[in-house]
Amino acid sequence: MISINTFGVIGGDKRQIAMAQSFAEDGYTVYAAGMEQASFSPGVQKASLEETIQNSDFVILPLPATVDKKTLNAPFSKEKIPLDEKFVQQLEHKKVFCGMLPRLLSTSDLWNRIDVSDYFEREEFTVKNAVPTSEGAIEIAMKEYPGTINGSECLVAGFGRIGKVLSRMLQGLGAKVTVSARKPQDLAWIQLEGYQAISTKKLGETRGYDIIFNTIPALVFDARTLARMAGKSLIIDLASAPGGVDWEAAQRQGIRAIQALSLPGKVAPKAAGEIIKTTIYHMIEEGVQ
Amino acid sequence: MISINTFGVIGGDKRQIAMAQSFAEDGYTVYAAGMEQASFSPGVQKASLEETIQNSDFVILPLPATVDKKTLNAPFSKEKIPLDEKFVQQLEHKKVFCGMLPRLLSTSDLWNRIDVSDYFEREEFTVKNAVPTSEGAIEIAMKEYPGTINGSECLVAGFGRIGKVLSRMLQGLGAKVTVSARKPQDLAWIQLEGYQAISTKKLGETRGYDIIFNTIPALVFDARTLARMAGKSLIIDLASAPGGVDWEAAQRQGIRAIQALSLPGKVAPKAAGEIIKTTIYHMIEEGVQ
Amino acid sequence: MISINTFGVIGGDKRQIAMAQSFAEDGYTVYAAGMEQASFSPGVQKASLEETIQNSDFVILPLPATVDKKTLNAPFSKEKIPLDEKFVQQLEHKKVFCGMLPRLLSTSDLWNRIDVSDYFEREEFTVKNAVPTSEGAIEIAMKEYPGTINGSECLVAGFGRIGKVLSRMLQGLGAKVTVSARKPQDLAWIQLEGYQAISTKKLGETRGYDIIFNTIPALVFDARTLARMAGKSLIIDLASAPGGVDWEAAQRQGIRAIQALSLPGKVAPKAAGEIIKTTIYHMIEEGVQ
Amino acid sequence: MISINTFGVIGGDKRQIAMAQSFAEDGYTVYAAGMEQASFSPGVQKASLEETIQNSDFVILPLPATVDKKTLNAPFSKEKIPLDEKFVQQLEHKKVFCGMLPRLLSTSDLWNRIDVSDYFEREEFTVKNAVPTSEGAIEIAMKEYPGTINGSECLVAGFGRIGKVLSRMLQGLGAKVTVSARKPQDLAWIQLEGYQAISTKKLGETRGYDIIFNTIPALVFDARTLARMAGKSLIIDLASAPGGVDWEAAQRQGIRAIQALSLPGKVAPKAAGEIIKTTIYHMIEEGVQ
Repeated sequence: MISINTFGVIGGDKRQIAMAQSFAEDGYTVYAAGMEQASFSPGVQKASLEETIQNSDFVILPLPATVDKKTLNAPFSKEKIPLDEKFVQQLEHKKVFCGMLPRLLSTSDLWNRIDVSDYFEREEFTVKNAVPTSEGAIEIAMKEYPGTINGSECLVAGFGRIGKVLSRMLQGLGAKVTVSARKPQDLAWIQLEGYQAISTKKLGETRGYDIIFNTIPALVFDARTLARMAGKSLIIDLASAPGGVDWEAAQRQGIRAIQALSLPGKVAPKAAGEIIKTTIYHMIEEGVQ
Repeated sequence: MISINTFGVIGGDKRQIAMAQSFAEDGYTVYAAGMEQASFSPGVQKASLEETIQNSDFVILPLPATVDKKTLNAPFSKEKIPLDEKFVQQLEHKKVFCGMLPRLLSTSDLWNRIDVSDYFEREEFTVKNAVPTSEGAIEIAMKEYPGTINGSECLVAGFGRIGKVLSRMLQGLGAKVTVSARKPQDLAWIQLEGYQAISTKKLGETRGYDIIFNTIPALVFDARTLARMAGKSLIIDLASAPGGVDWEAAQRQGIRAIQALSLPGKVAPKAAGEIIKTTIYHMIEEGVQ
Repeated sequence: MISINTFGVIGGDKRQIAMAQSFAEDGYTVYAAGMEQASFSPGVQKASLEETIQNSDFVILPLPATVDKKTLNAPFSKEKIPLDEKFVQQLEHKKVFCGMLPRLLSTSDLWNRIDVSDYFEREEFTVKNAVPTSEGAIEIAMKEYPGTINGSECLVAGFGRIGKVLSRMLQGLGAKVTVSARKPQDLAWIQLEGYQAISTKKLGETRGYDIIFNTIPALVFDARTLARMAGKSLIIDLASAPGGVDWEAAQRQGIRAIQALSLPGKVAPKAAGEIIKTTIYHMIEEGVQ
Repeated sequence: MISINTFGVIGGDKRQIAMAQSFAEDGYTVYAAGMEQASFSPGVQKASLEETIQNSDFVILPLPATVDKKTLNAPFSKEKIPLDEKFVQQLEHKKVFCGMLPRLLSTSDLWNRIDVSDYFEREEFTVKNAVPTSEGAIEIAMKEYPGTINGSECLVAGFGRIGKVLSRMLQGLGAKVTVSARKPQDLAWIQLEGYQAISTKKLGETRGYDIIFNTIPALVFDARTLARMAGKSLIIDLASAPGGVDWEAAQRQGIRAIQALSLPGKVAPKAAGEIIKTTIYHMIEEGVQ
């Protein structure tokens, strides 16, 4: 058993707030800085940046750590928190965690001196994050599609983590699910899990889906494919920007297409915060063994 | 094969619009009256009340047929349509369908002369309607609950039609599902479908559900039960008014409780319209055999 | 809480043995008679018929109580146990349970004096018994069908208790499941649970099932229907004798058909015994309230 | 479209027979050698070894190609077929497929001249083969376990291909499924698919499983672990020999353990043959593109 005393949580959105509270509920002392406009349950103490870092064994920076590559990503902070020399130096001799570390490293060479780890890179994080992403996609589908998911024809393009979780949930709701993939072994999995399997490159030859969920970060749904098979479909694109849909062509063709990004933080901040927390616990456990 | 020529659709909400369009897509001639402010796909012809009835073999009144027991339920009509003697007389010698017939019968004895049937009373209608109701409940849960449904502890109170469909969908999304019922055979079904089973009368002894869905039209969640087991729960009440929750007590105790009524028409009008259509087809088929 | 002291278990097959042991594991004193050739775990005491009855508050007769309507159904007994006047008189002032009571009542008017209840009539028993029946059917299918259940086309004729449980299990194994029923509301349920629905009277118009499970106790699969749709199928008939298959026609047409009766006792005696036990507990509980 | 004319099928067990027939049903000409004692449907022509090879564009050797590393694996052949120089030379300029190629290569350097590919190495083959393996394991469990799978506590050790398919099927039958794995991302998947997750190294600290399925090819169930947690369990070991169970210890401790090897060929030869066929089709398609 390792002794973890104190977590310092700096900046971030609702996920970071939820994570801070979840640390506190687990019995740890938690300091929070750069979140003056957030309200916390009693277990989390707001403090200055200096105090928070000094008092903490583990410091958690947000996901992503920075958006503009100059200041910390801190939407609940009253002031900008510059990622300057002073900021970095305070973190020396601390164990630091953040999301999307490469962005942080690109801001200054000083980060090379800091013991900082990226939970966003951990496969378990990505796997678990597929759950709030999939539920967010389903929530959008329920809101926008005038029929029911049960009994509808759904296409999930791509059988990565999100594709796997999303197909299963759609099947669980009673949809007729088709999944596309490229590799024969993925097509084998798709079939034996009870979905209709289709090769991604043959998508243009199909038709008749009520709802299309795209998870592939490549222009799969170009003008030609849209014209052939998506005439009456609702398209929900989950692939990171610029996504997998030719937006202009979709608009021109009158196809309803929705870009759905960063769903976990939006639809399930509590779940998303707990996923970060659990991942950090595992990283700490592994680090001390 | 029976020959059905023309459907006349009068009044109603988005479900009735969707139903009219669905009849047209199936190849029937469709007239619509009392829906001036609705826009239809080409197959549906707007007409006057008289024309609609005269031209139609089958006349479909809305669900419910009337709200105020004086005029037809026609939110898309420019004017009130009184359920007077003239209205009823026009329907003589027609085959008429409506939802919630008892309300209509209470407006006038003249209805006894009309061949009018209630699709709302058909068990297949109620069964199918449980799908949009359940999906609507899940959509609300996804919107209001800050975690994910997957992995959450859900209680479904009641194992009637909605309870059955809702439990299965929640399980399909990966929730941990407990279902309450009174009868031993229902508890047996609950267990063998993989849910946790609990006697409805012991609900007050449990605790720790993230989301509670009530489907029982009786005051199951009174002040005492709420106090004991629902402290941190989100409650979604699907039972028809006045519902199964002591709303005042819930508010007093700071419990988040949502009354969710008439979900099919709200969340999935297209599905709801098609359910009415299919039920009417079956009633016509049975009638001519 | 009610105080139950002692169970007397008389006659019966492996289910009755399993039930006796399960009572003992729950902490009750258990006497067993008419089962000399069975071996029990320590908690069950073999005794004479007289001793067993005298010492017990509750006496459990087998399922069925009698086969020949003259003697107790007691395959593990060394001697026949006649259901004579002496046998019945000993049971006066006892609470007696049995399976298939009507057979017992037909042996003597003396039974009218006895407080005897039939667990076989309870709906919860029938529901739970559908589980070992369905698993037994699947075990037979796995053994006899040269392909895998996963991916195979299965037809379940009938949507009663066994039909419901069996369809769900087949779907859970990844089969493509079609279910037949007569009533529109059953067909509605079938569809929304994700199965293909077909009207039972149209079975003769279909084709191409790998495995057909019949649960309907009527001659659904007559010579004509078999000829039209079952050419390459394996048929497993679960309906009680004479069953739902024209056996001669099947043989003549070279169709492989298997009659599978009394599966619970054969494939899962432990489960079957525990189902009887739980049902009796519920009957006792209800009786004293 | 590629033009495939003729398949030559040599040696092998029931899977090879089923595969030959399945090629014929797809419309190809099929010659079969080394299978004199097998009976085929009309589409497959028995021929001599020489004739079969000469007439065929594609030659399919069995799985495994050889058992004794001297002769072809040909249980349905009247005579031994030596894997000698003459045998190999006949295959020059043919496209040859076999299962477990390394065994064949170890018999002679001459094989280096032959264009021979191993379908057993293809991930899609292994994935699909997990289906008959899992169903075979479930069939054994149904046969040997006196209760029902539905409601039973099952442990699946390992979350590779078989672990994934087997867990899902057990869940589909209504079992309470726990799955063990080592990696955090696998444990994350296990949880979100609705199973109980447990670290493989903590298996010894658990107890109470009715049925344990092992898929890990390492001594996970050693004497100590068995003693601690498997007292009343039925163990079915699916890992390739020597398997994952200390068989002596199991016997000493009175634990019922079953080694289940090569299930696809035994329980579902037709399915297994079709899996080989489909894999070969894919390999041919990829080879010519």
